[in-house]
Amino acid sequence: MAHPAWLAPTTYAKLRHRFVWLDAFDSPIRASLLGELKRGDAELSDRSQAELHLVIDSGLAPETFRVSGENPTVVAGGDPAGLLYGFFRWLTGNPDELSTGRVHAPAIPIRMVDHWDNVDIHPVMGQVERGYAGSSLFYDDGRLRWNLDRVDDYARLLASVGINAVCLNNVNVHATETTLLTTRLEWVERLARHFRAWGVRVHLSVNFASPIVLGKLDTCDPLAPTVQQWWDAVTDEVYARIPDFGGYVVKADSEGQPGPFAYQRTHADGANLLARAVARHGGRVHWRCFVYNHRQDWRDRSTDRARAAYDHFIGLDGDFDAEVILQIKHGPIDFQIREPVSPLLAAMPHTAVGLEVQLTQEYTGQQRHICYLPQRWAEQVLDFRPWGDERAQWEVVAGRGPGSRPGSIVAVANVGTDEFWTGHPFAQANLYGYGRLAWDPTSDPSAILDDWIRSTFAPLPTVHEALRSMILDSCDLYESYTAPLGVGFMVTPGNHYGPNIDGYEYSPWGTYHFADRDGIGVDRTSTSGSGYTTQYHQPWSTLYDSVDTCPTELLLFFHHVAWNHRLPDGTTVAQHIYDIHFGGVEAVKRLCETWQELRGQIEPTTYDRVSLLLSEQLANAGQWCDTLTSYVWRHSGIPDSDQRPLY
Amino acid sequence: MAHPAWLAPTTYAKLRHRFVWLDAFDSPIRASLLGELKRGDAELSDRSQAELHLVIDSGLAPETFRVSGENPTVVAGGDPAGLLYGFFRWLTGNPDELSTGRVHAPAIPIRMVDHWDNVDIHPVMGQVERGYAGSSLFYDDGRLRWNLDRVDDYARLLASVGINAVCLNNVNVHATETTLLTTRLEWVERLARHFRAWGVRVHLSVNFASPIVLGKLDTCDPLAPTVQQWWDAVTDEVYARIPDFGGYVVKADSEGQPGPFAYQRTHADGANLLARAVARHGGRVHWRCFVYNHRQDWRDRSTDRARAAYDHFIGLDGDFDAEVILQIKHGPIDFQIREPVSPLLAAMPHTAVGLEVQLTQEYTGQQRHICYLPQRWAEQVLDFRPWGDERAQWEVVAGRGPGSRPGSIVAVANVGTDEFWTGHPFAQANLYGYGRLAWDPTSDPSAILDDWIRSTFAPLPTVHEALRSMILDSCDLYESYTAPLGVGFMVTPGNHYGPNIDGYEYSPWGTYHFADRDGIGVDRTSTSGSGYTTQYHQPWSTLYDSVDTCPTELLLFFHHVAWNHRLPDGTTVAQHIYDIHFGGVEAVKRLCETWQELRGQIEPTTYDRVSLLLSEQLANAGQWCDTLTSYVWRHSGIPDSDQRPLY
Repeated sequence: MAHPAWLAPTTYAKLRHRFVWLDAFDSPIRASLLGELKRGDAELSDRSQAELHLVIDSGLAPETFRVSGENPTVVAGGDPAGLLYGFFRWLTGNPDELSTGRVHAPAIPIRMVDHWDNVDIHPVMGQVERGYAGSSLFYDDGRLRWNLDRVDDYARLLASVGINAVCLNNVNVHATETTLLTTRLEWVERLARHFRAWGVRVHLSVNFASPIVLGKLDTCDPLAPTVQQWWDAVTDEVYARIPDFGGYVVKADSEGQPGPFAYQRTHADGANLLARAVARHGGRVHWRCFVYNHRQDWRDRSTDRARAAYDHFIGLDGDFDAEVILQIKHGPIDFQIREPVSPLLAAMPHTAVGLEVQLTQEYTGQQRHICYLPQRWAEQVLDFRPWGDERAQWEVVAGRGPGSRPGSIVAVANVGTDEFWTGHPFAQANLYGYGRLAWDPTSDPSAILDDWIRSTFAPLPTVHEALRSMILDSCDLYESYTAPLGVGFMVTPGNHYGPNIDGYEYSPWGTYHFADRDGIGVDRTSTSGSGYTTQYHQPWSTLYDSVDTCPTELLLFFHHVAWNHRLPDGTTVAQHIYDIHFGGVEAVKRLCETWQELRGQIEPTTYDRVSLLLSEQLANAGQWCDTLTSYVWRHSGIPDSDQRPLY
Repeated sequence: MAHPAWLAPTTYAKLRHRFVWLDAFDSPIRASLLGELKRGDAELSDRSQAELHLVIDSGLAPETFRVSGENPTVVAGGDPAGLLYGFFRWLTGNPDELSTGRVHAPAIPIRMVDHWDNVDIHPVMGQVERGYAGSSLFYDDGRLRWNLDRVDDYARLLASVGINAVCLNNVNVHATETTLLTTRLEWVERLARHFRAWGVRVHLSVNFASPIVLGKLDTCDPLAPTVQQWWDAVTDEVYARIPDFGGYVVKADSEGQPGPFAYQRTHADGANLLARAVARHGGRVHWRCFVYNHRQDWRDRSTDRARAAYDHFIGLDGDFDAEVILQIKHGPIDFQIREPVSPLLAAMPHTAVGLEVQLTQEYTGQQRHICYLPQRWAEQVLDFRPWGDERAQWEVVAGRGPGSRPGSIVAVANVGTDEFWTGHPFAQANLYGYGRLAWDPTSDPSAILDDWIRSTFAPLPTVHEALRSMILDSCDLYESYTAPLGVGFMVTPGNHYGPNIDGYEYSPWGTYHFADRDGIGVDRTSTSGSGYTTQYHQPWSTLYDSVDTCPTELLLFFHHVAWNHRLPDGTTVAQHIYDIHFGGVEAVKRLCETWQELRGQIEPTTYDRVSLLLSEQLANAGQWCDTLTSYVWRHSGIPDSDQRPLY
C-alpha cells in the first residue's frame, strides 16, 4: 500500500461525524468529493443541518474559492475544480489563513507536472527517464497498467495542492510513445478519465515527425498544407475522445529530436502548426526552449551553451500564435543546483511563457539526498527581479508581466511506484511545495514546509522543529558539498550522480568549467567572454559582468578566476572550496545525528527508509568532498589552511 | 554469408582435381577432412594413384604432423587432429617451411579461446561482454541458436590455425549461464558435437556457488564433503554426455564473483575441489588469477592493484593439484596496450600456468582501430626473459620452465555474428596470429602477418606491402595517441572506449595515474612506492626500480615523475606526450591515405568497411590527442615547443 503522503488519515479527523451538505452538480469531481467525505466518515445532511457546506458559487471565477464562517463553514467554489481546491485547503490548510473570507485564486492558470515516463522500457533510460522512485505509475513494460488505482491516488494528491495539468509521456518521444497520439489513444483516454475526476487535464508529448512516422506523409514541414491537415485531423480525433484534452508538449530540434530546422523553418512555424490544430478546441502547445548544440566542440570556447535558448528564440517574439506557450527551463543550462535565472524568461513580452522546474532530482541528489527545492525556486527564480525593480519573475508567467500574457508553470515529475511515491520520503515535500508555489508564487517556502510537515507527520513540536531543521536549507547543504560558486556539471556522465569533476570537460555537451593549474570558471562576460551577460536586463547585465559585483554564489558561472582569487570574505577560491566541502560533510553528519534522535518518534517504515538514505547521502557527500578537494589541490597546489586531508 | 577469413576460396585452388587418398579412421574429423576436399573439388582415389596422401602415422605423437614428398605429397598426422593441422598447414602454409619433412608439434598443449558470451542479454554487458563483432555465435537472447552453421565455420577457422580448446561462456557467470552445467547441459553437448569435428574441446565457465544455486546445498565450502560430492556427481554427468569435455574455467573471488574466501579457504582449496572432480576424466581446471580489490579506496596510495595477483597466489605454489592451471593475464593490470609482464608468470614453478591474452580489443580500439596484437604478445610477453638469461616467458607455459609443467595459452575471443567475424576485417589477423603463436611462440609475427595477408587477400605485391605497412606496427601507433609511457586506464569508464583522462582517477578500481600540477605516474618502486618492482626476478627488479634504468615506455607505470622530467632523448615528459599524440594523429591520416590508394584493389565490401572504420579511428585519435594534450597543458603549464593547438 502506498504511503498517504500529506493526506494522512489524521487530517480527515476534521470531518469525522460532521454533517455536510454537498451541492448537486454535474461533474466527475462531485464523486471525488463524495469519496473524500466518506474517507473522513462525514455524514451527508440536508442544507439546514449542515456544519460544512460545499457549494458552487457562480459569482466566483473558475478554479477560485472562498471559505467563510465557523459553524456552519461554507466552502464555495467558482466551479467544481474551485470547490475541490477549497475543500482541500479547508481540510489541510492553516485555519488562520482561511477565515478571512477572501477569494483564493491561482496566480498561474496552468500548473502542470510533466512525466518523463516511457511506455517501453528504454534500453538506457528505463521506464521513467531520470526517475528515482520506482517504475511508472502509468506504464509497465510496453503497455498501460491494468490497475490504475495508484493513478487515482496520485491525481488526488495533485488536486489537493491545486495542480491542474499533467503531461503523460516523456518529452523524448520514442517509437511506441509516438503512437499514443493515434493507435494507442485509448490509453490516453483512459488515463484522462482518472485525472478528470480530480480536475487535472492531460497533455501528450508528441513527436514532431508524427506526420511521417504515423501518417505516412513524406514530410513534416510545418508549412506544408498536408502536414497542417494531418495535425488538424488527428487533433480533432483526440478532442472527440478527450474533450478537455490539455494540448501538446514538444521538444523539437533538441538533443536529437526532430523539428522544423530540417525544413529551414523556424520554431514559430513549428509551434504554430500545432497551435492551429489545438486552437479550435481550447488546447495549448507547450513548446520547449531547451534547444542547444549537443554536439559542441569542447575545444571551441566561443560557443556558450548558456546563450543558446535566448539566441534561438529572442528573434521570434511576436511570431507565436496565442495558443503557444514557450516552456523555458529556470536556468540557462539544465537544472543545476545553482544557476542564474534564464534571461529568456523576461525577454519575450509578446509571447506566453511557461517556467519549467525539475522535481525529479536529476542533478540534486536523485532522491537519495535531501534537497527541498521550493526554497530555491521561490528565492532564486520566482522572486528574482529581472528588471531590477519591484516586478518579480513569477509575474511574467502569471500574466502580470510586460506583455500581460498568462502562461504556465511546469515541473518534471518525481513520483513513481515507490511506496513513498518519491523514493526519499522527504522528496514528497517538493511535490507538495511545487503545487503550493504554483498556486501562489509569493508563498513563503518555509511556511509551506511547516504545512507539509504537519499534514504528513502530525508531529510533536520538538519533532516538527527537528524535521524542519533537516529539510528547510537542504539545498544549500547539497550545494555546499557538490557545486562550488556556480560551477555545475561535475557529475558522472550519463547517470548524473556522484562526482566526476572532468566528466563533462572534454565532451560535446557544452558544460565546462575550464579548470587548469591556474584557475577555474567560465568567462561569460561581455568584455573577454561569451557575452552571455548581455542577455540580461540592467542592473544584472552590469552586475554579472564584473568580477567585483557578481554575486559570490555565481562567481564561477560568470567568470574564470585564479585559484587564489580572493572572495569578499577574504578566503581564496581554493580555500573556500575546501571549507564548504569539508563543512558540508560535517553538516550531513549532524543531519544523521538529528535523525537518530528521532528514532521512536517517526513511523518505523519511514524512519528506516530515511536512515538508509542518510547513510547514502553521507557516503556520497564524502566522495564529493574528497574528490573535489583533491582535484583542486592537485590543480592549484594550494594547501588547506586547516590541514584537512587532501589526496 | 560470412566472410571466408583466411580460408579464402583461392586457397583451395591447390586441391582442384587432385587425386587424394584419405586413410580410413574413426573420428568425426574424417568427415571434416572430406568436406574440405570437396570444397576444393579434389577427387578421392585409391592409394596408388593419389597425388596427396592424408594418413595417420601411429609413430607420431598426437596433434603432431609431418609433410613430405612432392608428388605424391604425404601429410601424416599422429592422430586425426594432427592430420587436420597438417592438412591445413599444407593447404595454407608457406611451402618452403613444410618441405623439410620435419615433425611439426605444438609448443603448448592447450591452445584455447575463451568466449565472454552470455546466454541472456545482460542489461549492461549485452550478449557478449566486451564484444565488438555483433552478437554471439552460440546464443541468441536467452537460448542456444537454432542454426549453428556459423559455429561449424568458426571451429574450422580455429582448427586451421591449431586452436584446440574453447570456453563457451563468460567468466562472469550469471543466473542462466550457471545452468549450462546441469539443466542446460544439452546445449553444451550440442556445441561440443560441432567443435569435436574440428578437434576442439569445449570448456565451461562455472559459478563457484553452483552447489548452492543449482544443488540446493547450503554451502559451497570447498572442504565440505557434500560439496565435493556434488561437484563429482555433476561432473560425472557432464563427462557421460561429453566424453572429451575439456574442463572448467573459474573466476572466483574476483569483481563480485563468489569464491572460497567466503569460507576462509584458499584459492588452492577452491581450485582443487574442481580439479578432483575433473581429474578422473582427464579434464583440467583453469583458475583465473585476476583477483584484486575492486572496491579500493582511491585515497589510499599504499594499496597497488598491480601487486594483487602475485600477492594473492605466490604463497600457494605447490598447493595446487596437477589438473589445475593458473590462468594469468599477461600484465598485472588488465590488458592495457602497454604493461610490463605479470611477474606471477615466472614465479610458480610448482604450478601449471596459463597465459591469458585478449583478442577482443577492449582497451585497444574495440575493433574500430587497427591493432595487430600478435606483435605485442610476441615481443613483450612470449619472448620476455623473466630471469634475464636465455629462458623466455613462453617456455613456462610450454612446460620448459623451471617446474617443467606444461600449461596453456588462452585468449579472450574477438568474434561474433558480424559478417567479417571480427568487426574490423583486419582484426581477423589477431585471431589468426594468436593460433599461429600458440602453436609456435617463437614464430615471427611479421611472417605470420604475411601469411595472413596472402591467405586472406591473395594480393598483388604492392598491395601486400601496403597492407603490411598499415597493420604490422599498428599497436605502436595506437599506443602513441592513447597511453603515453606506460600509463593506462585513461579511458571512458564503463565502455572503455575513447579518452577520459580522470575517468578512473577518483574511483574504486585501483587504476590511477596520480596526475597533478607537478607530475604524473605511479610510484611502484621498492624505496618510495608500492614495492611492486620487488615481485620481479633480477635484473628486472633493479632495472624497473630506478628512474634511470627503467625502460622509457614503462616509465610512468613504475615512477611518478615531474612534467618537466627529461627522457633519454632530452625531451620533457610533457613535450614527449605532445609529440607522440600529434604525431600519432598524423600517422593515422597517412593510414587513411594509404587505404585510399588501394581503392579498386580490394574487394568492395571489405574496402568500404575498412574505410568507415578508418574515419572513426581518425576521429577518435584526434579526440585522444586533443583531450590528453590539453589535459597535460592545463596541468603542467608547459607549452608545446611546436606550438600546436592546446585547449
